[in-house]
Amino acid sequence: MDATETMMKRIDTAIASFLDKKIAEAGQVSPESQRLIENVKEFSLRKGKRIRPLMVVNGYKCFKEDYEQDIIDASICTELLHNYLLIHDDIMDESNLRRGLPTFHKVYEEIYTQIGIEKPEPYAINSSILAGDVLAALSSQPIIDSPFPDNNKLNAISVFNRTNSLTGYGQEIDILLELKKDPVMDDVTLVHTLKTANYTIKGPLHIGAILAGANDQQLKVLGDYAIPAGRAFQIQDDILGVFGSEEKIGKPRDSDLKEGKKTTLVIYALENGNEQQKKVLQSILGNTAIGEAEVEQAQKIFEETGALDRSKKLAHDLAQQAFNTVSNADFLPKGKNFLIEQADKLVNRDY
Amino acid sequence: MDATETMMKRIDTAIASFLDKKIAEAGQVSPESQRLIENVKEFSLRKGKRIRPLMVVNGYKCFKEDYEQDIIDASICTELLHNYLLIHDDIMDESNLRRGLPTFHKVYEEIYTQIGIEKPEPYAINSSILAGDVLAALSSQPIIDSPFPDNNKLNAISVFNRTNSLTGYGQEIDILLELKKDPVMDDVTLVHTLKTANYTIKGPLHIGAILAGANDQQLKVLGDYAIPAGRAFQIQDDILGVFGSEEKIGKPRDSDLKEGKKTTLVIYALENGNEQQKKVLQSILGNTAIGEAEVEQAQKIFEETGALDRSKKLAHDLAQQAFNTVSNADFLPKGKNFLIEQADKLVNRDY
Repeated sequence: MDATETMMKRIDTAIASFLDKKIAEAGQVSPESQRLIENVKEFSLRKGKRIRPLMVVNGYKCFKEDYEQDIIDASICTELLHNYLLIHDDIMDESNLRRGLPTFHKVYEEIYTQIGIEKPEPYAINSSILAGDVLAALSSQPIIDSPFPDNNKLNAISVFNRTNSLTGYGQEIDILLELKKDPVMDDVTLVHTLKTANYTIKGPLHIGAILAGANDQQLKVLGDYAIPAGRAFQIQDDILGVFGSEEKIGKPRDSDLKEGKKTTLVIYALENGNEQQKKVLQSILGNTAIGEAEVEQAQKIFEETGALDRSKKLAHDLAQQAFNTVSNADFLPKGKNFLIEQADKLVNRDY
Repeated sequence: MDATETMMKRIDTAIASFLDKKIAEAGQVSPESQRLIENVKEFSLRKGKRIRPLMVVNGYKCFKEDYEQDIIDASICTELLHNYLLIHDDIMDESNLRRGLPTFHKVYEEIYTQIGIEKPEPYAINSSILAGDVLAALSSQPIIDSPFPDNNKLNAISVFNRTNSLTGYGQEIDILLELKKDPVMDDVTLVHTLKTANYTIKGPLHIGAILAGANDQQLKVLGDYAIPAGRAFQIQDDILGVFGSEEKIGKPRDSDLKEGKKTTLVIYALENGNEQQKKVLQSILGNTAIGEAEVEQAQKIFEETGALDRSKKLAHDLAQQAFNTVSNADFLPKGKNFLIEQADKLVNRDY
């Protein structure tokens, strides 16, 4: 087990320990409350990359190396937030599966069916909206409970709140972008910046760094690393979404196309494609009736229009920019090495 | 204009000023983000009692009287939270009207219809879930931005988070209680404690008091006032819900019955009624096809079984208990007088 895997395990232990306390508290209120948090715990501990808490821990380690257990305990705020947003996202997208298991509202549909509720769906949806809301209410608590200086904690909660609201804005833009017939690269860049770069990299790194007492200049360097790294990650993820194997990406590779997701691939293909290519691509995007044949058609269009190569190059350049920024930074070795490693993986990503 | 009305106006000014800043920030992100917060502002400033911010301000004034504008600015955290929960509640209840105007998702349905979205409903629902989530993310910020001691602010945010999660538990219990055929008084008391007493009175009073530096003993006295006052308020509200005029209560007086809402009236009537009365009442509760005739039937059952008198007496006794607690408390006059006045109104409530 390498250092990152060990850290992921310690993060999971911290999540379990925090939620076990909340389960006990909820049990004092009512059996229904306890059941709600027990299901939140099951959902939260499903297999995942724990990338956001890892960023909090390593953002901290760029500036401080003591109080390691305390920063791990605080870092789970980002994972609680993430699970709350996933529960709500799955309701909005009417998804049935999450991390290979039933989504939260599907779990509740089953629970309510078993206890004999006649029309369980609306009750399951409502309980899931509430579970998300309760999780949101608890999510900043790990920062409050930590032993770091009060002023650092308040600043970290501010960043946490701001990251959370920016993610909401990004999601709103993204939902409406699906309907847009003439999207431009700026739209896609904005969504990637808000929903991936800020939410997954910059916000978590800043929370960790602020708890360690980093100054504005140090936070700026982390931001200069985070934004291109996050964008590179999302562009690569979108490429894998269409070109990867279902096994590797964990979802059918027609799903982004069916959703009509606006990616750099789509923007470049619409920019460079001939009328025929654009017409075919438009007929595939957002079409829920497509199958493997249309996925191959789309792949061909992305290749022939140069959209695939341009997207790979953009991701590579952004990742290189992140790599250079952190390589030159005057950070402590443990945090810095983690960030370099992540950027390096992005630069040399295997498609 | 009396002192409370003046304070309500100042609270509204603080809400407008906070949200105007967020509108400007959202405008830097995208026009869609700006529109979202503009609609949150319209929704938040609709006519209302602002009881929760009033409780924060007066909880503070029980212990401190300076920094008045700062506690008003901080107090709006509870109103932001309230509006977020109303937006989500209206989605769960599929309500069309809120404070005499379209609910948030109905406002968005109209916006999306006007910009030509073909099936606007799911988009409107999703934007409303997100608007609530963004508002939740911003809601503790007024506490963070305030000039009170850091440690008091962190403790106030803890109470805020806890109040918020308890409300979620209460709502979950309440949803399932609608389905319960044999509810008992303990169920109703628990929901009233979580969803009204804690959420509307105790939590807000404690937030204000903590920001003023109150100690544990002082917080206990406020809690001893808040819980019976909140329960009395909810019992009286439920009585008015069936016996009040539509004009006075702002909603049709068949709506609680249609919803199958479990009130002290219902519990007492099921306890004391004969088989015939219980049968009729059960056939009315949760029946969406009822009209004025059934409302009158229910009223008669509540009167004849003694449920109305017992409910009034319970509310009166609880309100008296709250009155006595605060009358004997060693609090500063401004805050104390407000709390006495509120309890007095509850003791002598006009049905």
